[in-house]
Amino acid sequence: MTEGKSKKDIAESKVLKAKKAEFAEWYEQILPAAEIIDNRYDVKGLFAWMPYGYNIMLNIKSLWDNLFRDSGIKEMYFPLIVPLNYCEKNESWWKGFKEQAFWVAGKGEESKHILRPTGEPAMYPLFSLWIRAYSDLPLRIYETVFSYRYETKQTKPLIRDREIGPWYEIHTAHATKEEAINEIKEAERINDVIWQKLAIAPLKVEKPIWECFPGAVGAIEYYTLMPDGRVLENGSLNNLGQAYSKKFDIKFVDKNGKEDYVWQTCTGNGERYLGSLVSVHGDDKGLIIPPAIAPIQAIIVPIYYKDDKDKIIKTALQLKEKLSSVVKLDADLRDETPGSKFYDWEIKGVPLRIEIGPKDIEKKQVTIVRRDNGTKIAVPEAKMQKEIPKLLDDIQKNLLEKSKLLLESSIGTAKTKDDLENPKKDILKFFWCNSERCWMEIKGIKEGYELFGSDLKESKTEGKCIICGKPSRKMGYFANTY
Amino acid sequence: MTEGKSKKDIAESKVLKAKKAEFAEWYEQILPAAEIIDNRYDVKGLFAWMPYGYNIMLNIKSLWDNLFRDSGIKEMYFPLIVPLNYCEKNESWWKGFKEQAFWVAGKGEESKHILRPTGEPAMYPLFSLWIRAYSDLPLRIYETVFSYRYETKQTKPLIRDREIGPWYEIHTAHATKEEAINEIKEAERINDVIWQKLAIAPLKVEKPIWECFPGAVGAIEYYTLMPDGRVLENGSLNNLGQAYSKKFDIKFVDKNGKEDYVWQTCTGNGERYLGSLVSVHGDDKGLIIPPAIAPIQAIIVPIYYKDDKDKIIKTALQLKEKLSSVVKLDADLRDETPGSKFYDWEIKGVPLRIEIGPKDIEKKQVTIVRRDNGTKIAVPEAKMQKEIPKLLDDIQKNLLEKSKLLLESSIGTAKTKDDLENPKKDILKFFWCNSERCWMEIKGIKEGYELFGSDLKESKTEGKCIICGKPSRKMGYFANTY
Repeated sequence: MTEGKSKKDIAESKVLKAKKAEFAEWYEQILPAAEIIDNRYDVKGLFAWMPYGYNIMLNIKSLWDNLFRDSGIKEMYFPLIVPLNYCEKNESWWKGFKEQAFWVAGKGEESKHILRPTGEPAMYPLFSLWIRAYSDLPLRIYETVFSYRYETKQTKPLIRDREIGPWYEIHTAHATKEEAINEIKEAERINDVIWQKLAIAPLKVEKPIWECFPGAVGAIEYYTLMPDGRVLENGSLNNLGQAYSKKFDIKFVDKNGKEDYVWQTCTGNGERYLGSLVSVHGDDKGLIIPPAIAPIQAIIVPIYYKDDKDKIIKTALQLKEKLSSVVKLDADLRDETPGSKFYDWEIKGVPLRIEIGPKDIEKKQVTIVRRDNGTKIAVPEAKMQKEIPKLLDDIQKNLLEKSKLLLESSIGTAKTKDDLENPKKDILKFFWCNSERCWMEIKGIKEGYELFGSDLKESKTEGKCIICGKPSRKMGYFANTY
Repeated sequence: MTEGKSKKDIAESKVLKAKKAEFAEWYEQILPAAEIIDNRYDVKGLFAWMPYGYNIMLNIKSLWDNLFRDSGIKEMYFPLIVPLNYCEKNESWWKGFKEQAFWVAGKGEESKHILRPTGEPAMYPLFSLWIRAYSDLPLRIYETVFSYRYETKQTKPLIRDREIGPWYEIHTAHATKEEAINEIKEAERINDVIWQKLAIAPLKVEKPIWECFPGAVGAIEYYTLMPDGRVLENGSLNNLGQAYSKKFDIKFVDKNGKEDYVWQTCTGNGERYLGSLVSVHGDDKGLIIPPAIAPIQAIIVPIYYKDDKDKIIKTALQLKEKLSSVVKLDADLRDETPGSKFYDWEIKGVPLRIEIGPKDIEKKQVTIVRRDNGTKIAVPEAKMQKEIPKLLDDIQKNLLEKSKLLLESSIGTAKTKDDLENPKKDILKFFWCNSERCWMEIKGIKEGYELFGSDLKESKTEGKCIICGKPSRKMGYFANTY
């Protein structure tokens, strides 16, 4: 992982450089080309999910459904339409969302309701009815929904939409501050598993207190490095403290008969997992879907001439039957040239292509091509069932490793303000004093760039704040953010 | 099934009679009591889904997801927010929905969009982009969503809501009328499987053409008989013909190069499956969930005194471990009396209760109580793994059989208009001439009652229309409808 050459290889590779400059265009083209979405729908910031794209998204959703269930977090559903009296309970939440809300009403009526931009105002009034005593705690629930924001910024599918989703929100309530802290640790554990399945190495940072909801204890956020060198916020774990429970009057009686407000956390993410997956793994040929979440892990392409068509198609179907217990696969029997089939499945990012032609049959083998590195290997029929799962494992590992190396190779160190003004790497890491004043000063240094968070662990060695020079062990991250 | 006595037993049973008179009240109370929903949310016609209720609903959703996937129908998602220019394409659709729509806009803006009341106007403009030639057909897709109608009628959770869902809509497009007819047959097959898993016998009827969308070929609808004697529309299979394709300009070029409009079908249902499941199977003790969709199929209740508590809880946990491969089960280890635990799980309708007490341990057995008929049996530990799945099968069959018998015993025959005016059974069946004139006349006979459809097959014997006396083989159904 720390091997110098491969880091350099990745950082210098032409494909990635090309993607960096042309990423926005590449991204816009790849989503419809790979049949992830169709954005010809006639409302800004809204699009239709195509079957292939939705299947990938639902596979990601299955990941979180299973992880949450195993952790004992229960699924619920809260209404889309939120009355103003719920919204107004937390004025700082409402201040942030009222201008960006979709307002809804009956025909000709005055709007007194909005579409959910986030879950809190629909959920917490009910929490206050459900929670009475310590025995009602902890409350650990989630919902997977679409949320709605009347974005004023430029929209970008899966990254910034007016209809955001599918998206989960976990909301928990606890009797003590310590339990809430442990819940955040559990959320970290779960998110780390999800990222591993997505084969992406994100950057995990701590937000300073002034960037959290007023009254909250703290927040951890994930960021993914996108091919254009910018970082994308990708999931947040909020330790809300008693900030909301005081607004929504969520109280409980503890074992000693004393009344107190509950301690809450909320964490959420969704379609941005896919937005970063598309971006991080994709290359000039299209998508590369990690095997752990690919709807089709291998595609069989029969290669025939007129004479042997029937025989080869029959073999391809037998192959499909034989392999269906070890790999999610399909056979492409369309009346197209092999070349055009290769092209289609490469764009869609199917991890393995299994070619079966006259020579393969003769040699009792199949020819397998890896989507991640283009390697072509002949595998004897007798070994297929063992080899294919191994290849899929290897692709999964390779994608994750590549993503780790890319992230590491993209982080540089800044010593001076000048380093921040002229960044030599996509992400710069440096000491800072953890004061709001220096945070704000760093924000003003370079258009679009910001100090977006700090390392979760303090540095073993002490340094000096890049702005004020005060001694500190806090390391911050600086980049162009989405 | 046609055995006189059991039919009579059911029709005359006190419990059902009690439910009939008090059904509305029973229904209102059971949904929060069994933790299906919480309807204290501060917007009319909207409620929160509780974990237990949502789990049941998602199990029903899994049924349809699997059936659709196996049938090759692909899942997609279309935006919630629909622009007026899409809505106005089919003026008869728009006429039906514009007054009942939720209108949506940015703050202070004029509303030019509505929330989807049904899928067509969001979907079909894209269909017209995707479909060019016969090779693009058939198109067979579905979405599972919440839909929104600003209902003016009284709302009733899971039966008539302003936020309707989870709800699926299958939409298909075909090159020929015959293919569309076959698609409806496939939808029938799928729905029949779903009803079997719900252990409910619905009534399947054909709608006359004037009750369908203008230009459509026909429709089949499912109705369930509710305990109050009224019938509830519960899923519709619409053969749309070219009614919509002409409005939305969905054309294709056939094999001979000729252009034509596609033939479409759409079918949908969702939360009403659960509304009828709750109503049909429930009794004075609460719900009865059919094993095929129960989130918890069996609940272990340890019965102990102070001395043997640890030992019995240990045995209960071993039992849970042992049985987890054959049944979805949980152990109730709360600090409550056995009686209060029995009560809770009876309300929730868990099919089997497994009691384990000192005597059971002594005799190396468990005591199993069936929720459907209250039978209590001792099962030797060595036989549990075989017996429990058998019991679950038997409950599933028993519930379906009971529902069939109840439906059959609730259908009577009408010979004269007077029979319709004073119905002696919940549903009356009779000959009618299939004319709109007689249909309308029957509608006027009794407040709330209507001729809601005809048998799919013609009668083998000929009769005379109950209104005009014209000879006919068409049998109609008349009941108080929701």
